[in-house]
Formats: sequence, C-alpha cells, structure tokens
Amino acid sequence: MTPKYIDHIGIAVKSIDESIPLYEKLLGTKCYAVEHVEDQFVKTAFFLIGQTKIELLESTDPEGPIGSFIEKKGEGIHHIAFAVDDTDQALNDAKENGFRLIDRVSRKGAEGMNIGFLNPKKTKGVLVELCSK
Amino acid sequence: MTPKYIDHIGIAVKSIDESIPLYEKLLGTKCYAVEHVEDQFVKTAFFLIGQTKIELLESTDPEGPIGSFIEKKGEGIHHIAFAVDDTDQALNDAKENGFRLIDRVSRKGAEGMNIGFLNPKKTKGVLVELCSK
Repeated sequence: MTPKYIDHIGIAVKSIDESIPLYEKLLGTKCYAVEHVEDQFVKTAFFLIGQTKIELLESTDPEGPIGSFIEKKGEGIHHIAFAVDDTDQALNDAKENGFRLIDRVSRKGAEGMNIGFLNPKKTKGVLVELCSK
Repeated sequence: MTPKYIDHIGIAVKSIDESIPLYEKLLGTKCYAVEHVEDQFVKTAFFLIGQTKIELLESTDPEGPIGSFIEKKGEGIHHIAFAVDDTDQALNDAKENGFRLIDRVSRKGAEGMNIGFLNPKKTKGVLVELCSK
C-alpha cells in the first residue's frame, strides 16, 4: 500500500467563498476547481502546490463530517490524503498491518477519485485518506 | 512568497519511539532521521513521501508548543510547511498580504532550515510554516 506522494491536504472551513481569495493570496495560485460532493455533504475548492493539492472543505449539512468537525475542533486541517495505486488494495493492506478502517471498500470522492479513510485512533490522531484515480 | 511545494507536514505525537514503527508501516518507508531541536523543545522524526516529508514531533517539555498542543487538542496534525525561496522575504510578503506573523524574522528549525510561522487566526485555523534551505 506504499503511498507514492501526498495527493492533498483537506482543510475544513466555514465558508469556501471567504476562504478561496485568502488561500489564493497565501498560496500565490488560483483555485482551479470548485466541486459539490453531495454524498459527503461538502463543497470543495482545489489549489495545486507542487505534487499536492490543498482542498478546502465547506460543510453543506451541519450533521455531515465537516460540519461536526468544525463544531468540535473549529476550522483547520482535517485530513491528509496519500496517493496509492489501488485504494481497495491499500485499504486491505492497511487492515492487515493493524490499522482500523472507516471505509472497508473505496467510494467515489471529489475529482472522481476512489477514496477510503483510516480510523485516526490507530494513526496518532491523524485522519488518513488513501486515494487513487 | 509563492510556495513551490509542501516541504513537510508536522504531526504532534506523545511518543516518537512508539510512533516511528507505526508510521513506517503506514508509509511503507523507513524513518531517515531523528533530531532534537532544543530551542523548540521537540524531538523530530522524518519520513519522505514524494516531494514532502512527514515530521513526527514529540514534546520534550510540557510547556513547549507541542506539549501544549497535545494537552489542548490531542495527538494529530500540527502544521503544514511550504517551501519558499527565502523565508524572510516570504514572511514580509505574507505580512503585506494581511497575514499575521508569529515569527517576524526566520529562525533555525530541524534539518538546518530557515523557518517562520504565520498566526493560524488569519489562515482559517491552519498553522502555516514557511521554510527555506
């Protein structure tokens, strides 16, 4: 399941519209895509820095995962996503290595990626996403 | 101040010794360096994934920045570091762009890098480090 590079870092924000111009200034690059991922109750905005994307995440439902994250912890870094060759294989490998899965099988995320999450209780508090094209 | 790539992601952990083998399994690569950064009261451990390093941070003093972070928020992602050409120039540019500085001038961090932090209150809760060689 060896990750090849860091595909993206997800950042939970209250307002995408307010955060995009701020991050464009911070990163010195334009947001290249905004996407609504309905089954995860989020609007996303993407920026590319080297190999890695910054993904801003705004909740569209207070009971969705980003809404409850902001409610508990406030705005901030939500997850790290590692690029793997095959998300389902990587999830299986992670399970065999003693990690705990949130997703047993991959599902579709933003940008049509196959994604799956590991439980942060077994990764020192870090919410890890595995993703492949 | 345009960042070129994500230099590293800092993760606060209670124990480096316990976390290194776990992250070696997660990342499929060996920790390549362990370093004590005395003036920041941390022990660090590094892994390379593509362009980006994962930096595990263990506090050596409960009143240091990582000790107080874990006390408040628990283990987890602590900061994102962007590689820039010149940290002092990037700090100045950030200030002119309306960001708030934690470090007005750069200081020495792990791996001999010149580092400086921005205040997370102006970056949607994200602790941003700017660093250069």
